[in-house]
Amino acid sequence: MRVAGRHYTTVWAAGGDEPGVEIIDQRKLPFSFEVETLRSVGEVATAIRDMHVRGAGCIGATAGYGMWLAACECRGEEAELRGLAADLVATRPTAANLRWAVERQLAAILDGPAEGWAGRARAEAEAIAAEDAEWCRRIGEHGLPMIREIAAAKPGGAPVNVLTHCNAGWLAFADWGSATAPIYAAHRAGVPVHVWVDETRPRNQGARLTAWELANEGVPHTVVVDNAGGHLMQHGMVDLVLTGTDRTTYTGDVANKIGTYLKALAAKDNGVPFYVALPSSTFDWEIRDGVGEIPIEERGGEEVSVVGGLRGRAVTEVDIVNPGSACANYAFDVTPARLVTGLITERGICAASEDGISSLFPERGR
Amino acid sequence: MRVAGRHYTTVWAAGGDEPGVEIIDQRKLPFSFEVETLRSVGEVATAIRDMHVRGAGCIGATAGYGMWLAACECRGEEAELRGLAADLVATRPTAANLRWAVERQLAAILDGPAEGWAGRARAEAEAIAAEDAEWCRRIGEHGLPMIREIAAAKPGGAPVNVLTHCNAGWLAFADWGSATAPIYAAHRAGVPVHVWVDETRPRNQGARLTAWELANEGVPHTVVVDNAGGHLMQHGMVDLVLTGTDRTTYTGDVANKIGTYLKALAAKDNGVPFYVALPSSTFDWEIRDGVGEIPIEERGGEEVSVVGGLRGRAVTEVDIVNPGSACANYAFDVTPARLVTGLITERGICAASEDGISSLFPERGR
Repeated sequence: MRVAGRHYTTVWAAGGDEPGVEIIDQRKLPFSFEVETLRSVGEVATAIRDMHVRGAGCIGATAGYGMWLAACECRGEEAELRGLAADLVATRPTAANLRWAVERQLAAILDGPAEGWAGRARAEAEAIAAEDAEWCRRIGEHGLPMIREIAAAKPGGAPVNVLTHCNAGWLAFADWGSATAPIYAAHRAGVPVHVWVDETRPRNQGARLTAWELANEGVPHTVVVDNAGGHLMQHGMVDLVLTGTDRTTYTGDVANKIGTYLKALAAKDNGVPFYVALPSSTFDWEIRDGVGEIPIEERGGEEVSVVGGLRGRAVTEVDIVNPGSACANYAFDVTPARLVTGLITERGICAASEDGISSLFPERGR
Repeated sequence: MRVAGRHYTTVWAAGGDEPGVEIIDQRKLPFSFEVETLRSVGEVATAIRDMHVRGAGCIGATAGYGMWLAACECRGEEAELRGLAADLVATRPTAANLRWAVERQLAAILDGPAEGWAGRARAEAEAIAAEDAEWCRRIGEHGLPMIREIAAAKPGGAPVNVLTHCNAGWLAFADWGSATAPIYAAHRAGVPVHVWVDETRPRNQGARLTAWELANEGVPHTVVVDNAGGHLMQHGMVDLVLTGTDRTTYTGDVANKIGTYLKALAAKDNGVPFYVALPSSTFDWEIRDGVGEIPIEERGGEEVSVVGGLRGRAVTEVDIVNPGSACANYAFDVTPARLVTGLITERGICAASEDGISSLFPERGR
């Protein structure tokens, strides 16, 4: 997608002779646009853990490149490679794409002699990133008719109001995004859309990243606090809720940024369709009960109590909580399948159920 | 309640010969504790509009004192008094107690000759504030048995986990608070309680005011983002949701700080009791359909995009939203009566329904 008019993806191999990966440091956005070069799998692990990169597909693609660096470092030592792979998976316990990309890389790397590790790993990393972008593009294609249909039913060319939570945008993938792909597809096709952007506390990915993305693509949008969505839906101001997911069970339960579940409840209560967009790499084919079984990452309380923003031209942090009061920080919640109208995948739209999902992905049938 | 061990109410008549009102400037909390003296009804209107004071009962009590200052300024001109009263009511359109206090004052002031206006108005202002504090104390008494009962059912003296949204604490009333009154009553009675404090974006009344209050009274608490409550309820970490209200219809629909509705939905979905505490001054005896009829105040977008906090020892504001992106700021939402387990009033607990409410307040029967 575009940054100041120029095309970018979120992660790519660095030029030159030394193996290296370049990422957009998302912690700095929207206040400054900085590209960071990572030269070791350890640096990649840090970038994932400390959220220089975040988002399902972007973590997966970055981890793919990280395994390339690991393959270069291990020089044929399989136990060492597996150890680095495990370290990488442990950086973000809820992220399904992370494990998926690392396991895919392990299989590709180990499928041949040690002298070919680096080459195969790099090719596989490129393939993972390209596939991620392509899958997101297809999600856009599959979601577009739904937005067109809503637009057609609105009077006088009124925009379709889409509410989204967190950033399931192109920054969260290699390109296009999941939840944003149908929005970008609609906008480029001339279908009028307006996006309600949940600011998404505590890390404000909506206010910082989604709003920045949409502004760069020229998509009309309004930032609201996470508390506002219920009111908007009660008053007919939302036509569609579209979110991404960090992990979706094969039964349709959706782990996503904390607060998603509350929006799904409000959508259900107000008859607003609630769709979750995901490339199939985000499915967890092992877990049946999302609420009971998906581990929810608990992060430091300082992400709640300290907020970063712009003061004049400098980025500054302020403490916003009563000094001395404890903070808890659960990063995700799980929206049960019963609240999800449908899943938009690279293969089309399906019901958020075991039957619906296996109709699109029969090869994963149990 | 206590501030650094000393007892305070939120509003009181200034000492000395000049008419005046003293308030706690809640915009400065928790980072500094400052008392502000207001010398005219215009200053009172500004203090209410710009939220030096906020919260149902505190606005009502402050407006009561404001009408005393108005009575002093008008010197018997009824049309002028009514004009000032209308200006005061217009400062916060959703606040039921504001209109209630102003109308009560108009009746009291105009119930006698002009030379008695100032005296009657001051007496009525004191009565409104004292009554508000007493009603909140009784809300605590009526809510305490419910908390005791939950505590008795928990194993090994585990604390009762109460989730609250915004600040319906003593700062929001003359004293004690509405939602916090049962919590303070339980804590003082030795019943173990722990409070999940929603930070309450955009103005962070939870993180700033409720956390500060609870800390001053020594009540264990943890601040969470507004997005977290659904997850906490899904995992059995909330025994009871207790909120206040800015206006409740005689049919039981509850207007309260934006986001309350989302917590009520989550409580319903997880079988967690959702109670709303209010003195009867917060009832709107005219409105039947809360979602359709209660006007929802829209405030400036800069309350969303600019956050104040502490940097070192100085209070600083930072911009947290992508520069150039629009923000919308709806201040309240309405929770339909069907989601409310019960109302805790100064006369006891009743169902959130016309029948339930009129059983406690038969004199308002329609």
